[in-house]
Amino acid sequence: MDLLKLGRGVLASQPFSQMVGAVLTRFDQDGTEIRVPVKDALKQQHGFVHGGVLSYLADNALTFAGGAVLGTGVVTSEYKINYLRPAIGQDIVARALAVHSGKSQAACRCDIFIVNDGKETLCAIAQGTIARLSASSPGE
Amino acid sequence: MDLLKLGRGVLASQPFSQMVGAVLTRFDQDGTEIRVPVKDALKQQHGFVHGGVLSYLADNALTFAGGAVLGTGVVTSEYKINYLRPAIGQDIVARALAVHSGKSQAACRCDIFIVNDGKETLCAIAQGTIARLSASSPGE
Amino acid sequence: MDLLKLGRGVLASQPFSQMVGAVLTRFDQDGTEIRVPVKDALKQQHGFVHGGVLSYLADNALTFAGGAVLGTGVVTSEYKINYLRPAIGQDIVARALAVHSGKSQAACRCDIFIVNDGKETLCAIAQGTIARLSASSPGE
Amino acid sequence: MDLLKLGRGVLASQPFSQMVGAVLTRFDQDGTEIRVPVKDALKQQHGFVHGGVLSYLADNALTFAGGAVLGTGVVTSEYKINYLRPAIGQDIVARALAVHSGKSQAACRCDIFIVNDGKETLCAIAQGTIARLSASSPGE
Repeated sequence: MDLLKLGRGVLASQPFSQMVGAVLTRFDQDGTEIRVPVKDALKQQHGFVHGGVLSYLADNALTFAGGAVLGTGVVTSEYKINYLRPAIGQDIVARALAVHSGKSQAACRCDIFIVNDGKETLCAIAQGTIARLSASSPGE
Repeated sequence: MDLLKLGRGVLASQPFSQMVGAVLTRFDQDGTEIRVPVKDALKQQHGFVHGGVLSYLADNALTFAGGAVLGTGVVTSEYKINYLRPAIGQDIVARALAVHSGKSQAACRCDIFIVNDGKETLCAIAQGTIARLSASSPGE
Repeated sequence: MDLLKLGRGVLASQPFSQMVGAVLTRFDQDGTEIRVPVKDALKQQHGFVHGGVLSYLADNALTFAGGAVLGTGVVTSEYKINYLRPAIGQDIVARALAVHSGKSQAACRCDIFIVNDGKETLCAIAQGTIARLSASSPGE
Repeated sequence: MDLLKLGRGVLASQPFSQMVGAVLTRFDQDGTEIRVPVKDALKQQHGFVHGGVLSYLADNALTFAGGAVLGTGVVTSEYKINYLRPAIGQDIVARALAVHSGKSQAACRCDIFIVNDGKETLCAIAQGTIARLSASSPGE
């Protein structure tokens, strides 16, 4: 099965991810990578990428990383994010990985980088829980 | 000073908040309220509001709540969010408050509700730290 | 059923809680309260109560609050804590409540106060997830 | 300067760390390691190490990791922890590292392992913020 193709299909079916302009560039059990080209619509009042965009990326990359090990039908249960520096650059890249997975949930970590003239700088880190949806809550 | 007007000016100067469609409906030291009318572009693949939108709202409402007590020139240092149920409805409302504030930072909490036919249901809770920018880091 | 008596039995069976000196003073679906009389052994190098004691209290109060709505057989899945000020006083009191509960987990919040000459001051806030143990993982 | 000796002096001056039995086994800018031999007094009702002990370890290892890059005079501002599996074994080892440090604070991560017959198993992960104390708040 082509996991990356599968994952891209999921991302393509998320209107909000399309509005943000997110691109899935890696998706397997050893890691998920989502890229977002920076555009003016993603900024806050000082010209930096809005924290909400970094949060969106953390949330989505963590969910995909959890889904890569738990299978489809997962949701983000919770996560926390630390912002490290203002995000100024041409692209944002989020890389996430499941650190542990059990029967019903996975604990994942995510690093978010701002890319400036090809150079990556860590600008946020996140950690969270991804839960498998139970059989009794289809489509949740 | 008209705090609400001041806050609305800040929100209006955030391109990402404009793209999401966020509206500041309360902004004083006793609370911040931000509303987002639900539109298709804010959803994920199952028709629910995307978790990234709830995260954006938590991030922004926490920042405003911190700014209401610390003054302008603040950034979100970190926060965590727990998603409680799928968000299906006409509006999302985030209410945040500074629980404690010191010289350089404030700890804030946020409740996020989905509004369905006028009825509010809690769908996410958040907690985080808002930091005042130091004089030596202008515009950060 | 006397929930408080039941909860006190659980706390009494936790050697670490006994070493810390924790006392359950409320335990029902509307709230959990755990008190810890401050003694020298609970302090750090500056004479304040060690952050690890406040963490222990947050962890345990959140778990009890989750157990009050989910039933016995629960574990803390995760939580976050913000320390607000140094804890100097005679007692520490943690109050926790389940903000939401589903089939398998509850989201809870906790406020921790330091009591000084009878006056309570908020010194830490926490938020976390309590999970019901599945039938297939007894004693986990 | 012998950082490890310095750090051990700090740990030795924390009564709570002494009661728990924590030992600092590494302390430099590339990492902090704290070990706790498991004893009955650290357990909960099912015989596992109490979550509060893992929390204490996360809190303290994160603080030391922040102190290694920020210098002495630091406090834990906040952190979150995810428990991954029951901790059953002879020792607990926490390893923490500052992922980023600025003028006034550092973002750190921590992995906590349970050691069983010499084999380490990851049982909790944490992420948090360590803050440098300002000149105006000595001893805080």
